[in-house]
Amino acid sequence: MAKKIDAAQVETSVGTMYPPPFHEPCKARERKKLGDAAGLTQFGVNLLRLAPGVWSAQRHWHVKEDEFVYVLSGEVVLVSDDGEEILRAGDAAGFKANDPDGHCLQNRSNKDAMVLEVGSRFEGEAAYYPDIDMVAPANEQPAMYAHRDGTPYPDLKRRGPSDA
Amino acid sequence: MAKKIDAAQVETSVGTMYPPPFHEPCKARERKKLGDAAGLTQFGVNLLRLAPGVWSAQRHWHVKEDEFVYVLSGEVVLVSDDGEEILRAGDAAGFKANDPDGHCLQNRSNKDAMVLEVGSRFEGEAAYYPDIDMVAPANEQPAMYAHRDGTPYPDLKRRGPSDA
Repeated sequence: MAKKIDAAQVETSVGTMYPPPFHEPCKARERKKLGDAAGLTQFGVNLLRLAPGVWSAQRHWHVKEDEFVYVLSGEVVLVSDDGEEILRAGDAAGFKANDPDGHCLQNRSNKDAMVLEVGSRFEGEAAYYPDIDMVAPANEQPAMYAHRDGTPYPDLKRRGPSDA
Repeated sequence: MAKKIDAAQVETSVGTMYPPPFHEPCKARERKKLGDAAGLTQFGVNLLRLAPGVWSAQRHWHVKEDEFVYVLSGEVVLVSDDGEEILRAGDAAGFKANDPDGHCLQNRSNKDAMVLEVGSRFEGEAAYYPDIDMVAPANEQPAMYAHRDGTPYPDLKRRGPSDA
């Protein structure tokens, strides 16, 4: 059996499950799950395409899971509590689990950016979003999003480019 | 504090700890530990430079740890029980923990190849090398190499380009 994963053959997932209006900056985010395609379970490796204006995610941090990004091409702005940094092809950044410094990547250029993102996987993971009234509580299967007071957001579904 | 990891500023580790003569095809292997540079502990992310003729490793498989490779530039030959496959820029492959199908990447081209390799980290990891009389037994700190009969190899040290 061939071991090579040809990214062109891997399904593209577009948008996020974020409730409106938080889905808006990420609704054209394209992600190919290369690690899953290779049958891996301990960490995920995603190939991310961020068109101009698109964000990797809402700014967030993980409780249990380390995360790492490597820019393959183009240019993104890494936003964190420390401010903003430009990452270009060959630049990387890592986000240690349980460091409450939310991060995201924003493509503010006029060209596509390609990013490889790696994250470990643990059951009971939770994620926090410091800029918005949204949390991803632990131990929810399937994963869901709630207000900070714990009230679940209704009507969660994948929202892509055609969703308002 | 800047989060950006500039690979040019990260220390390069050359060669391997393999005992002779197994170090030979890997003695010019260059590795930058980007994940460590970002303070991550759950998985490692290494930027690998394989000059013409250089191998990523002796063919091996891990007992506990998933592994993933993504070719950034150049061309390598992935060797496994399934035979040989050429991986070029944008190609990836994954190796599930405890799948006893050894793998390595060999640069048989006349240009450098750059590869990102990801591997999870677990205590008590062991690795097996199907082609040679060498194993990396579990629960050895610091990690060591032994013959298949368990006899440790003496005089283990990092062996680089100047080692015979």
